[in-house]
Amino acid sequence: MNGKTVFSIGERTLIFRLSEIFKVPEGKERKQKGILIDAGSDDCAVLDLKGEDCLVFTIDMLHRTTDFPEEMTPWQMGWMSAAVNLSDIAAMGAEPTGLLMAIGMPEDTEIAFVEELAKGMQACAKFCGTAIIGGDLDTHTELTITGTALGRVKKSQLLRRRGAKPGDFVCVTGHTGSAGVALRAIQSKKQISETILKTLFEPLPRTSEARILAQSGAATSMIDTSDGLAMSLYDLARESHVGFRILENNLPILREVREFVSSFEELMELCLYTGGDFELLITIDPQQIKKVQNICNLAVIGECTEYKNGIVLESPGCRLTNIEQRGYEQLKSEHR
Amino acid sequence: MNGKTVFSIGERTLIFRLSEIFKVPEGKERKQKGILIDAGSDDCAVLDLKGEDCLVFTIDMLHRTTDFPEEMTPWQMGWMSAAVNLSDIAAMGAEPTGLLMAIGMPEDTEIAFVEELAKGMQACAKFCGTAIIGGDLDTHTELTITGTALGRVKKSQLLRRRGAKPGDFVCVTGHTGSAGVALRAIQSKKQISETILKTLFEPLPRTSEARILAQSGAATSMIDTSDGLAMSLYDLARESHVGFRILENNLPILREVREFVSSFEELMELCLYTGGDFELLITIDPQQIKKVQNICNLAVIGECTEYKNGIVLESPGCRLTNIEQRGYEQLKSEHR
Repeated sequence: MNGKTVFSIGERTLIFRLSEIFKVPEGKERKQKGILIDAGSDDCAVLDLKGEDCLVFTIDMLHRTTDFPEEMTPWQMGWMSAAVNLSDIAAMGAEPTGLLMAIGMPEDTEIAFVEELAKGMQACAKFCGTAIIGGDLDTHTELTITGTALGRVKKSQLLRRRGAKPGDFVCVTGHTGSAGVALRAIQSKKQISETILKTLFEPLPRTSEARILAQSGAATSMIDTSDGLAMSLYDLARESHVGFRILENNLPILREVREFVSSFEELMELCLYTGGDFELLITIDPQQIKKVQNICNLAVIGECTEYKNGIVLESPGCRLTNIEQRGYEQLKSEHR
Repeated sequence: MNGKTVFSIGERTLIFRLSEIFKVPEGKERKQKGILIDAGSDDCAVLDLKGEDCLVFTIDMLHRTTDFPEEMTPWQMGWMSAAVNLSDIAAMGAEPTGLLMAIGMPEDTEIAFVEELAKGMQACAKFCGTAIIGGDLDTHTELTITGTALGRVKKSQLLRRRGAKPGDFVCVTGHTGSAGVALRAIQSKKQISETILKTLFEPLPRTSEARILAQSGAATSMIDTSDGLAMSLYDLARESHVGFRILENNLPILREVREFVSSFEELMELCLYTGGDFELLITIDPQQIKKVQNICNLAVIGECTEYKNGIVLESPGCRLTNIEQRGYEQLKSEHR
């Protein structure tokens, strides 16, 4: 073979091509198999449990050189490996019901290291009200951890990327840009607070916020921001066929993040185009926002518009600039 | 840290130590979480679906240097990655309901290679009546594939490693030693038939046999033989607290396998201590064996005895030798 490489087309294009191979056509077979959502279009695959509930199901592979900065402790690597999966479960509005963790490691890995990894995984699972219920061990040249998580949610409460409507509010949990600035600080060997570092090394899956949002009926669509806010906006826009007007002034950015950067461009780079925050991006029916805004500490960052208007950032002086479709993408390593 | 390495204690010991970290104690919390079986003691973790069914859930990590011989095509690597998980689902008597596949690959991997991988995965899933419903893509120095599969089975039909009783028949599906001889032939660059090579490169998960066995009520315990027949016997013995008397003459061995080896010791090495066959090892109530023996093409290879009698091989001349506790074990690479 002497053809195009995966690197040349990028993750999202490759996902699309593989989805075509895996596709189970609409119809009887698909219904029999209970597939509600399959490969490629959402944070999790979704299976019908044939009652009022459905099952959400996700997998995530991490490995040492690209996913774990040198400064991370083994405990934090374990936490992170569970967190990335639990964040996907949260993004569907589901309650996590168990994780499996496969660990591939060099033969000279110390037992104490693996036990710290396991304790970190366990702590994150416990934080989200669930547990590690199994796994696999493997020897590998490079530390590689693949986690998979299951969650359960009423079909009527399932939150998808599809569902946002023009006029809906756009909200995020927590802050944006914190993980990005932590990564920048590490790379440039600059000082940064422990609090900011923790957002990168020990991201908190928004499990409880997700459940409140799902039960409230106020949310119309949801996704996590692990690949960066811009990328998540594009994913929601494509699936819901809407545009977004995001208000620059409303982005919830910690003061320490603002003080770290030397230009507005750098700030936007961190807040829009850098992954790692693991917050939830939600669209909410304006009539129902009061039900959830305070409980979930949501920031309203803009509104849904017509698809044709695209995804734009509005400055305090009402100047509009396009938000670009880029962020953290695997198979395109120059972006991180 | 300067302690013991994972290599020095081996996979099963490490699994035990990690299980202690992940353990959810018996009682209310465990019941609330619906955990029926967790890490370490069976082929799959099992979750209560709160109706008459339960969910079985497994993960398996494979990578190029240890799991995919050079002679394998990308399609076969894909098939194998799905098969190892589907075999675990079968071992619980469950019907598979979906897989997720995470693929980590070097940046210069050709798209055609990944598409062939995907087609192999898809073909194996289809063979077992299920589908690939999602996944994850990642860049990695070495091709690494982690699959995870879900299955569903009535609680009353769930087959575990626990449950065998003295007097039960011990049975296996298919043949033993075929994958082992294929591996041996490749390593020593000797000729071997396409049929034998296929057992190593395209193992057939015993999904339909597993369902028949589970529905029959005749089976008392079950496991797959992916780590070798001896290792699986030891796993069943420990969980069921029984011993085994295996009749050498009854082992279902293909003539080509017998003709390949140059000694009895070599034959037993392949049939008992080499992994890769992915057959089912089942204990069956003697009163009910007729229900399933012919439908599932089972070979009765011996019987369950008291735990104190250990695990022995009986020769045609009634000489007894101990079957050793060894086989394919990760983190102990000298065994393969």
